[in-house]
Amino acid sequence: MRALAEDVIRRCRDIARMTEVPGETTRTFLSPPMRDVHEYLGAWMRGLRMQVHVDAAGNIRGLHGDPSKPRLMIGSHLDTVPNAGAFDGILGVVIGIALAGTKPHMALEVIGFSEEEGVRFGKPFLGSRALIGATDWGDPIDEAIRAFGLDPAELPAAYYAPRTIGYLEFHIEQGPVLEQLDLPLGVVEAIVGQSRYMLTFEGKANHAGTTPMPLRHDALVAAAKWVCEVDRYAREHDGLVATVGSLHVSPNAGNVIPGEVRASLDVRHARDNQRHRAVAHLLSRADAKAGLLLDQAAVNMDEALTAALASAVNATSYPVHRMPSGAGHDAMVIAPHIPSAMLFLRSPGGISHHPDELVLAGDVEAALFAGTEFLSQLEAQYV
Amino acid sequence: MRALAEDVIRRCRDIARMTEVPGETTRTFLSPPMRDVHEYLGAWMRGLRMQVHVDAAGNIRGLHGDPSKPRLMIGSHLDTVPNAGAFDGILGVVIGIALAGTKPHMALEVIGFSEEEGVRFGKPFLGSRALIGATDWGDPIDEAIRAFGLDPAELPAAYYAPRTIGYLEFHIEQGPVLEQLDLPLGVVEAIVGQSRYMLTFEGKANHAGTTPMPLRHDALVAAAKWVCEVDRYAREHDGLVATVGSLHVSPNAGNVIPGEVRASLDVRHARDNQRHRAVAHLLSRADAKAGLLLDQAAVNMDEALTAALASAVNATSYPVHRMPSGAGHDAMVIAPHIPSAMLFLRSPGGISHHPDELVLAGDVEAALFAGTEFLSQLEAQYV
Repeated sequence: MRALAEDVIRRCRDIARMTEVPGETTRTFLSPPMRDVHEYLGAWMRGLRMQVHVDAAGNIRGLHGDPSKPRLMIGSHLDTVPNAGAFDGILGVVIGIALAGTKPHMALEVIGFSEEEGVRFGKPFLGSRALIGATDWGDPIDEAIRAFGLDPAELPAAYYAPRTIGYLEFHIEQGPVLEQLDLPLGVVEAIVGQSRYMLTFEGKANHAGTTPMPLRHDALVAAAKWVCEVDRYAREHDGLVATVGSLHVSPNAGNVIPGEVRASLDVRHARDNQRHRAVAHLLSRADAKAGLLLDQAAVNMDEALTAALASAVNATSYPVHRMPSGAGHDAMVIAPHIPSAMLFLRSPGGISHHPDELVLAGDVEAALFAGTEFLSQLEAQYV
Repeated sequence: MRALAEDVIRRCRDIARMTEVPGETTRTFLSPPMRDVHEYLGAWMRGLRMQVHVDAAGNIRGLHGDPSKPRLMIGSHLDTVPNAGAFDGILGVVIGIALAGTKPHMALEVIGFSEEEGVRFGKPFLGSRALIGATDWGDPIDEAIRAFGLDPAELPAAYYAPRTIGYLEFHIEQGPVLEQLDLPLGVVEAIVGQSRYMLTFEGKANHAGTTPMPLRHDALVAAAKWVCEVDRYAREHDGLVATVGSLHVSPNAGNVIPGEVRASLDVRHARDNQRHRAVAHLLSRADAKAGLLLDQAAVNMDEALTAALASAVNATSYPVHRMPSGAGHDAMVIAPHIPSAMLFLRSPGGISHHPDELVLAGDVEAALFAGTEFLSQLEAQYV
């Protein structure tokens, strides 16, 4: 299994060289290097006697086993952010094929989604949205599909097979939690819901020398007090993260009292009611106008499938750690349609979306072991 | 006196139309409209039988009375910031000429400084620096002097006359204090000292969704706590102003924990030891690297001359309000060389450096009255 894990890592690094920008890894939706990825993975899967095709959304799909039997789907995405690491997304596809290579008794469809990051058209999850029939995209996306030699009219055929009994996604954590706990794997219970707002604090710009303190209306002081409250509140509420990531001060000159501050707010929690309660509190504490940008509900993974995954992790002899995912993944789009489970692999240094992104061979080995265990359990049920 | 005050305002508005940028008032050091200002003021002063010349720094100077007798100098600056109001600087020159027009018994030199704002070459106070012999400028300033038809070699002749017994500057307050107190005039005791720093708060940029609160190093939260402390401390210390006017967050994206924040600090007080104590405290409370940009000592006005000015204001029947100036003025450059006094006129709305800048006719009338009283007192001493 260790040799297979090292092969998985080697293949991820091979694919990282398929890029739009020489010297880094940048691979967006249906860009030229995506064709190389299809060829590379297609050849590997055909070598394993899988039936391979690329659907009209540019997802590569390989089927192991009898197409008429209940199948498990394993997948993740092929595209990357600009100047990415070698594992975000692609690791889950390569692990899926490696598991198909272990010749499980049950039917297994491995899918590499063409698009998850939203870089090329500002619309994320195009690959997994094709799987669940959300393909009313129009131009310029349809045009890009045609330019790649595919036919948007055939998008409905990308819909998932009727006897798909589950979806499993392996993904690097992209955060520091598993490393902090010294654990290779984490069982994802839910993908957190997310609220995004833009707040505008109004003050009065004035001369920093001639305006005494009691006569000031300093928009930055008002915003700063609120930033402190956002941090304090989030630290006191378990499982909550709240971030002011961007702040624009106007006029932003050292000798002028700030007249206006615009600040972002990003609040996430696995439970929507706790997220909404946090947002209501934080907005009530801001003397500012707030504009809603996003209110995305949390998505729970399937209970039975997640229990099976936890039991598979337990068989690795590592402790089972259940956790939410703080970021969105293809499983978030798919879970409302297909029972889904998700397994995180530790991210050394918590680093992702960066060339230094890593995964440890021992952790991939644990994931592969958990994957075969998970397949064995399903086989007992479905074969 | 009311008619004279209205004439002063009308003349300021005439001069505001002498501009580099049609439709606004923008008049930098030795720009073409400065020639129109020289012509306008020169003609007026010659009409009052004053001896007029433009010195090598481009300052216009008009002498009323006997050049061999002790003289009072009254002045301010002719240049403006971009898109300025009609009174900053020029009001003090026009009031000076209006007072010369009242034919005082003592010699009076009115000076309109060519440069105070520092807009054209990033070096402020060129006009008043010529007066005290600080003229080692070199190119490109010397080149601009030649291009205007003046000779940098003659800059030493711009030095103030040996029997100059004092310098008086009338200036709009450019702040809200006098309006708040419902007073037309303020006697300036000192021009505050000023410290400027740039601070860099280092954190660790990370994913806003996947990084739990206890594992964060949020540079903006650290900076925000400090901004609150700057405000709190300044409000608790009389006469102190402290401002964080500019803040740059990096990477400044809504879904990324801020990894670095750069923040400005501007601290001013009329007493240097109190300013230094404030700076030491505020820097000690910042978990940041701090770079010193400016440490400018406070400049006191002359005690005897300021007492005479206060007594002149008292004669207007308005209460005497002594106050520091939070901004720099020509008097700051001159005071270490010539006993200086400064009189503020109320700024409606505290507005300055803006086309809406105003001065009230009644306040100009009070200033003219105080000016004649001040001249009478000096005459009793020197004539």
